[in-house]
Amino acid sequence: MNRRDFNQSLLFAVPALTWLVPQGPSQLHINGQRLNARLTELAEFGKTPEGGTHRLAYSDADLEARQYAMKLMREAKLEVSIDAAGNIVGRRAGSDASLKPLMIGSHIDSVPAGGSYDGQVGSMGAIEAAQTLADNNQRLRHPLEVVIFQNEEGGTIGSTAIARGLTEKDLSIVANSKKTIREGIKFIGGDPDKLSNAVRKKGDLAGYLELHIEQGGSLYQEKIDIGVVEGIVGVFWWDVTVEGFANHAGTTPMNQRRDALLAAAKYIEAVNRIVTSLPGRQVGTVGKIQAFPGAFNIIPGKVATSLGLRDLDAAKVQMLFEKIQSEVRQIEAATGTKFDFKQVNASQPAPTDARFRRVIEDSAKQLGLTTKLMPSGAGHDAQEIAHLAPVGMIFVPSRDGISHSPREFSEPADITNGANVLLLSLLKLDAMNFK
Amino acid sequence: MNRRDFNQSLLFAVPALTWLVPQGPSQLHINGQRLNARLTELAEFGKTPEGGTHRLAYSDADLEARQYAMKLMREAKLEVSIDAAGNIVGRRAGSDASLKPLMIGSHIDSVPAGGSYDGQVGSMGAIEAAQTLADNNQRLRHPLEVVIFQNEEGGTIGSTAIARGLTEKDLSIVANSKKTIREGIKFIGGDPDKLSNAVRKKGDLAGYLELHIEQGGSLYQEKIDIGVVEGIVGVFWWDVTVEGFANHAGTTPMNQRRDALLAAAKYIEAVNRIVTSLPGRQVGTVGKIQAFPGAFNIIPGKVATSLGLRDLDAAKVQMLFEKIQSEVRQIEAATGTKFDFKQVNASQPAPTDARFRRVIEDSAKQLGLTTKLMPSGAGHDAQEIAHLAPVGMIFVPSRDGISHSPREFSEPADITNGANVLLLSLLKLDAMNFK
Repeated sequence: MNRRDFNQSLLFAVPALTWLVPQGPSQLHINGQRLNARLTELAEFGKTPEGGTHRLAYSDADLEARQYAMKLMREAKLEVSIDAAGNIVGRRAGSDASLKPLMIGSHIDSVPAGGSYDGQVGSMGAIEAAQTLADNNQRLRHPLEVVIFQNEEGGTIGSTAIARGLTEKDLSIVANSKKTIREGIKFIGGDPDKLSNAVRKKGDLAGYLELHIEQGGSLYQEKIDIGVVEGIVGVFWWDVTVEGFANHAGTTPMNQRRDALLAAAKYIEAVNRIVTSLPGRQVGTVGKIQAFPGAFNIIPGKVATSLGLRDLDAAKVQMLFEKIQSEVRQIEAATGTKFDFKQVNASQPAPTDARFRRVIEDSAKQLGLTTKLMPSGAGHDAQEIAHLAPVGMIFVPSRDGISHSPREFSEPADITNGANVLLLSLLKLDAMNFK
Repeated sequence: MNRRDFNQSLLFAVPALTWLVPQGPSQLHINGQRLNARLTELAEFGKTPEGGTHRLAYSDADLEARQYAMKLMREAKLEVSIDAAGNIVGRRAGSDASLKPLMIGSHIDSVPAGGSYDGQVGSMGAIEAAQTLADNNQRLRHPLEVVIFQNEEGGTIGSTAIARGLTEKDLSIVANSKKTIREGIKFIGGDPDKLSNAVRKKGDLAGYLELHIEQGGSLYQEKIDIGVVEGIVGVFWWDVTVEGFANHAGTTPMNQRRDALLAAAKYIEAVNRIVTSLPGRQVGTVGKIQAFPGAFNIIPGKVATSLGLRDLDAAKVQMLFEKIQSEVRQIEAATGTKFDFKQVNASQPAPTDARFRRVIEDSAKQLGLTTKLMPSGAGHDAQEIAHLAPVGMIFVPSRDGISHSPREFSEPADITNGANVLLLSLLKLDAMNFK
């Protein structure tokens, strides 16, 4: 939709805010054709018949895509290593040895049957920014780190490992690829017994900047080029188990049943009703369900399902969870079942840094692009890195707001715009001094 | 619970109704200790940690249990073969070559994570009746056939193959063991290319008698020894698919979702509400569900679920199905989803034969046992054989009415009673003449 040609728009761009930027770099721009071609190549790893990407963290497709990314990083003159947590880190020294690194990056793992843009645009965009600097023999003052975080879709595992460290409980979580996090880290070349080596301390980084597709439909609908992210919503997940009693579906009268699936159905309806009963942008989703034993002629004795709640305000999430719990008590009483909620993810809401927001907005304007300040409804690695350092996020439009689907799509021109904002923002940040 | 001792009760049994029975046979009784010991041995095949049985049709456990049953049949002086449909048939000639066979039997496959009595009591009971006849050198006038039908739990497949023949569509159904019916028939020693050899014509059989656990709780609650089955409810199953649209669970506002699982939840609640809104003994069950792709952070784009409806009146089932369809149209409109119902089983209600009911009742009374006339809420092989010949069914109590569960249990004394009623009924039927 938004087919703005970046090169054309540059003709009209007024570099009025370049006072922070050293001579020259504002003329730098990334190679959009190369970037988009690499996204197409990357999409081959785990490609689905529907044209999407199924690249679960710790799968063979993930491993192959990581090898591809590391090859590109080396071409971009980055010194590539895999940290103990399995994150790919590409480093280039800065000109001022006293400065802490500026980090850019994203992830390349996908949800099951997902798309080819989520995480991948930011990962290839970050490598493209580094490649452009290398092509132009441009060295930053700060050390540069390009990072591809492992297993973002399973709960920002790689960035959590850097920002806070993983717990034994985290390591025993079974990922969608059926491997535990511990097994997965080994599989991709990390060392789960040396995770402390991967942890960074507060102050170890000057800042972190991430380019990403919006995944929602605001930018697309309003025809805006760049989203300046004001914060990332908290993401809270629970495994939910419903215990009823399995019995014969033909001989057990309706009024003598303890049907775990009927109870789960009432719960799913309640989650939707409670979440939509309040004004605001909070969302609640039940994404998983399976009935056991799962046969036509048996009343389900057990159901494994889930709960996901998100909002910029953690207190609101807590309040929604309590309302759901209260309704669940009624469902238990009415159906003779028992619910159990086990929290498996609790990413707190993370505001972005005001200076970073300003730099992103200035960079976009300098490039002649329109902007919008917006929250991120999706969780991102940036929210974990926000524990360590100031962060910023740049969004580009998603067609029809579709994401986590084979129909996920962003225009090549929009992706090029985003990577140029990333590069220019990086240069502007490099000119600043961080404590 | 019901610990009536058969041997004691016999002391008071008045053989007033033995005029139909040749001299002697009313004194015959089965060996309850041997029968119950064999049930315990059979339960080893597919035994679960919970103490139940997981013996899916066409599984290794099924194959091993079938070999065990064939060994017992040979010990009972039956000539054993596997018909083209994979049913085990044990034959013994009768004294009158002009008569058609009397058939007794049941099944030994189980539902996933089921119990050790459903089908198994009737199978071991029928072999025990044949063994008792052999032990006493007693030959029937009619040829005797002891049959173990294959894959009863997957929709009375083996008995359908005998009574009506299997269609190509039936053969392509994927059973719980993940094999198609066609593959399964080969696996257990049948020949899916010669199924016409297994089909019997109307008049080929004099009659069929099946001993079974009730699976419901009526006999247990009312402390009655023997259920005389008046008819078997029709069993109707549908595979149900709900198509919505998969999207990101964080970035897609609640009012822009097409959540297939929310729609499925409303459907499950509607099935329960509609089925319970009418008086009567009809039941409706949603036993299966899975959401796709099935992740915390994706709104489900697709749900695979099911529908099962049962009643003695097929017209009532049709009416319930239409009410459900009508409500589904409203759910589709409200949630932006599309439902598809594909019928995968339609066993019509089957009344038992009045003469058989009388013989069962007389036999029980002769043995000093209490009886109750009752419908069968579960489907049984007898309902298929009813297409060919008059049928009768004998129920024994299920503790707490629990079935299709590891907690399924029937008292050894009740099982012994049931097998004695089976044997005496068989002898009484053998004395009658069928057209």
